[in-house]
Amino acid sequence: MNKQFVNELADIKTNFAQWYTDVILKTDMVDYGPVKGTMVIKPYGYAIWENIQQYLDKEFKKRGVQNAYFPLLIPESYLKREAEHVKGFAPEVAVVTYAGGEELAEKLVIRPTSETIICEMYAKWIKSYRDLPMVMNQWCNVMRWEKTTRPFLRTSEFLWQEGHTVQANEEDAERDTQEMLKVYSDCLKNLMAIPTLTGRKTEKEKFAGAVATYGMEALMKDGKCLQAGTTHNLGQNFAKASNIRFLNKNGELEYGYSTSWGVSTRLIGALVMVHGDERGLRMPPNIAPIQAVIIPIANHKTGVNEKCEEIYKKLIENNIRVKLDNSDNTPGWKFNEYEMKGVPVRLEIGPRDIENNVLTAVRRDTHEKTQIGLDNVVEELKNLMQDIQSNMLAQAEENLKASIVETNDFDKMVDAVNNGKVALSYHCGNIECEEEIQQKTSIKTRVIHSYDEQNKCVYCNKPSKYRVYFGKQY
Amino acid sequence: MNKQFVNELADIKTNFAQWYTDVILKTDMVDYGPVKGTMVIKPYGYAIWENIQQYLDKEFKKRGVQNAYFPLLIPESYLKREAEHVKGFAPEVAVVTYAGGEELAEKLVIRPTSETIICEMYAKWIKSYRDLPMVMNQWCNVMRWEKTTRPFLRTSEFLWQEGHTVQANEEDAERDTQEMLKVYSDCLKNLMAIPTLTGRKTEKEKFAGAVATYGMEALMKDGKCLQAGTTHNLGQNFAKASNIRFLNKNGELEYGYSTSWGVSTRLIGALVMVHGDERGLRMPPNIAPIQAVIIPIANHKTGVNEKCEEIYKKLIENNIRVKLDNSDNTPGWKFNEYEMKGVPVRLEIGPRDIENNVLTAVRRDTHEKTQIGLDNVVEELKNLMQDIQSNMLAQAEENLKASIVETNDFDKMVDAVNNGKVALSYHCGNIECEEEIQQKTSIKTRVIHSYDEQNKCVYCNKPSKYRVYFGKQY
Repeated sequence: MNKQFVNELADIKTNFAQWYTDVILKTDMVDYGPVKGTMVIKPYGYAIWENIQQYLDKEFKKRGVQNAYFPLLIPESYLKREAEHVKGFAPEVAVVTYAGGEELAEKLVIRPTSETIICEMYAKWIKSYRDLPMVMNQWCNVMRWEKTTRPFLRTSEFLWQEGHTVQANEEDAERDTQEMLKVYSDCLKNLMAIPTLTGRKTEKEKFAGAVATYGMEALMKDGKCLQAGTTHNLGQNFAKASNIRFLNKNGELEYGYSTSWGVSTRLIGALVMVHGDERGLRMPPNIAPIQAVIIPIANHKTGVNEKCEEIYKKLIENNIRVKLDNSDNTPGWKFNEYEMKGVPVRLEIGPRDIENNVLTAVRRDTHEKTQIGLDNVVEELKNLMQDIQSNMLAQAEENLKASIVETNDFDKMVDAVNNGKVALSYHCGNIECEEEIQQKTSIKTRVIHSYDEQNKCVYCNKPSKYRVYFGKQY
Repeated sequence: MNKQFVNELADIKTNFAQWYTDVILKTDMVDYGPVKGTMVIKPYGYAIWENIQQYLDKEFKKRGVQNAYFPLLIPESYLKREAEHVKGFAPEVAVVTYAGGEELAEKLVIRPTSETIICEMYAKWIKSYRDLPMVMNQWCNVMRWEKTTRPFLRTSEFLWQEGHTVQANEEDAERDTQEMLKVYSDCLKNLMAIPTLTGRKTEKEKFAGAVATYGMEALMKDGKCLQAGTTHNLGQNFAKASNIRFLNKNGELEYGYSTSWGVSTRLIGALVMVHGDERGLRMPPNIAPIQAVIIPIANHKTGVNEKCEEIYKKLIENNIRVKLDNSDNTPGWKFNEYEMKGVPVRLEIGPRDIENNVLTAVRRDTHEKTQIGLDNVVEELKNLMQDIQSNMLAQAEENLKASIVETNDFDKMVDAVNNGKVALSYHCGNIECEEEIQQKTSIKTRVIHSYDEQNKCVYCNKPSKYRVYFGKQY
C-alpha cells in the first residue's frame, strides 16, 4: 500500500507537465516500458481505451465498416512508393534486419501506419466497381521512433485504429472523410465530454500524400491544443502509387479514390488534460472505468458490509461499473484514492445511513454531497451520472469558448497563443507565409474555421483565403 | 464477380491440405501477406476472431481478469534470463537492429510471447501479498519466424491473448492454470461446437520454463490433432528469473507463483478443419459471422424485394447476424457461394412463398429444407439455429469418439495414428522413451488422459506412469 496522496501531485497551475506525469503514474494508468519511449498501459488506462473501442466499433459497423488485420511488417520498398509519404515516415521507422537466425534479403519496417500495405492488398482485391466501396478498419499497434516521448501523447509504440476506404469517385471519398470526422468528434463529445474544434488542415499541415486532411483539436487545461484525430482524403495518390484500378460502369479502367482515418491511445492523454484538476483525474461517467465506488463507513459495525454488498450487486446487475472497496484502509485514505482516480461518484454507507435507509453520494466534479434513498439507488445514481456527464461537457465547452481570441493583429495573435489561448485569425493560405510564422514564433495553424476571401492575412496582409485557428500544440 | 465455385475446391478426402488452402482463400477468410509467412486476415475470417474475443473477454472479466497492454519490443537480454525459455524462442525471433535512423545500442526482439517483459513489470509492481493475485491479460500480435507456414495454423505473425497471473502460493497458481483450461474448452464447445481432449502435457512436451503445461487438443477431419490452447503453471521459475518477490503475511520475502495461458487465431483454422466438408465451410451458428442469408427468388416480381427487406430488418432487430443478398447474381450462384462460406441457414423468399406467408429455410449442416411461417420467423429461426449448433457439436463429438483407439500394442498404436486415429496407450513417463518413439515414428504424445501405475509402457514395457493420447499434430 505504497500509494501516493493528492498533495504529492505537482501543482496543476504552475507545473502542468509534471502534474500530468504524476497523475497518470500515480493513478495506475500507465508505466514506463523498459525500452526508452515505450509505455505499459495498465488496466486503469486500458479500460478507457476499451470503452473508446466499444463506442467507435459500434459506430463503424453501423456504417458498414468491416474489421480486418494486416501484417505488422512492411517491406522497406513499400514505403518508397508514394514520394510524399516516404518523406513523412522514413526517419521514424524501426527496422527488422534479421529473423529466424538469418539476415533478411529485404529489410522490413514495423508499420508506422498501414496505408502502403493495405493499398497493396486492395490493388489485388479490387477489380470492378462492384467491389467498391471497400471499407475496412483495423485495431492495432503502430510504431514511430520519436526522440521526445510522453506516455499516451507521444510514444514509440501506440495503439490505434486505422480505417481505409476506396470509393469509385471523388465525392464519395470526400464524404467518407468528413463523415468519419463527425463520428470521432461525436465520440469525444458524447463519451468523453470533450468538445473539439474540427475542420480542414492547411496545405502545410496535411498528411504526407493526402489531398485533404481534416483534424479534430481538443483544448488542454494548459491552453495547448491536442490533435485528437485526423481523417484523410487521399484522392487517387495512393491508388496510383499502388495501382488500385477498377473497371467502371462504362467498362473503363480507373484509379480508385481512397481515404484513411484514425484515432489512437493519445485520446487517453486528452481525457486527463481536459478534465483533470489539482486533486487528480476527473472521469466523465460515460467513459469512466469505475463509475461509482462504494466505501463502507465504520464497517466493523454489524450490517454495514452486508448492506454494501447488497447495493454493489444491485448496481452491477444494472450495468453500472461499480467497485466496492472493503479493504482495511481508512475511509479517508479511500476518499483521496478514488478522488485522484477521478471516479465520478463516491457512495458512502455507514450505520446511520442504514438506519435512515439512505446513502451519501459525493460527486467528483462539484464535490456536492446528496443523500439518496436506498430503494431508489439505481435510478438516482443514473440521474446523477447523467448530470455529471452534462456538467463536465458544459465546463469543457465553457473553457474552450473562453480560450478563443478573435484577432487579426499579428502581435495580439502571438501574444494570445503564448498566453495559453487559441487565436482565430485570417490567413492567405500560402505555405511559405505559414512557414515564416512558424519559424518566427513556433506557432502553427490547427484547423481551418471557415473560408473567407474578404479579409487580409494576419501576417503578410495579402487577401485572406480562410479563417484559421492558431495554437500551441502537443 | 470472379468468384470460384464449389467444384473448384480440392477433394477433402484425398487432398485435405489443398482443400484447406482452397477453402480459406476462396471464402475470403484470409490472403497471403507480401512478406513470406505472413497473412492478411480478411473480414470474414476476422469476424470469427472477434466472436472468440467477445466470448473469452467476458469470461475473463467475470473472473477478475483485467486487460492491459505491454510493449511489442523486448530487449534481447530479457529473453536470456530464463535458461529454458531462451532455448524455446531464440531461433524464432525477429530482431530490430536500427530505429529512428540510428543503429540501436541493444537489439530489440519482437515479442514471441510476453512472459519476460510482463514479469519484469510485475517485479516492479508487486511488493506485498496485498498486491496479489495480479491477474492481467492482453490481446495482441506476436511473432515467431517459422520455416513452414500455413494461414491461421502457423504464420510468422499471429494474434492471440496471453493471460499472466501471479499468486501467493502454488495451489492458487495451479488452480488458475486448470480453470483457464476449462474456460478455453468451454469456449470451443459452446461457441465453436468443437469437443476437445484436455489434460496435462508430458514433461517432454511442456512449455519451455514451465512446471506444468496443460493442453487442449481438437481433432481435425484428416485425423490430425491441433493444439488449440495451452495453460502453463510456471511455478517460481519466472519469478526467480525476474525477481518477483512479495512480503508474505509473516513478513518474509517470498517468490511469487506465476501462470500464463493463451489461445490464438489458430482457432480459426481449427473451426475450418473440424466442421468443413466437400462443399466448403460449415459454421456453427454461435460463431458464424453470417448466421442466415436471405436470398430473393424471382426478385423482378412485385413485392419480393420488399418482403426480403422486411424480414431482414426484423431479424437484425432481433440480433440475428443476417445478410440480404439482393445482388444481380443468380440464385444458383448465391446458393453455392453461401454454402461454401458455411452460412448455417439459407432463407429463400419467392412470390409463391409470399402468397403462402412462408419462407423456405435450408440448413447447411444437413441440407434439410423446412418451411417457416413468416409471422414466426424470429422464433423459428432461433430454434433452427440452436438445433444446428447441437447437431454440429454432436457430429464432432461422434467423430472424436470414433477416432480414439485404445490399445497397448506398440505396432497397433503406430498403425492407428498413421491411419488418422488417436491412440490411447500407457506410457512410462520417461522423457528418453518418449523421444525414442518420436525418432522412430514421428509420433508425439498429445495430453495425459489419466494417471495409472498399474500397467506397462506401450513402448519400453516398464511400469506405466499414465495413460496418454498419441496422435499426429499440426
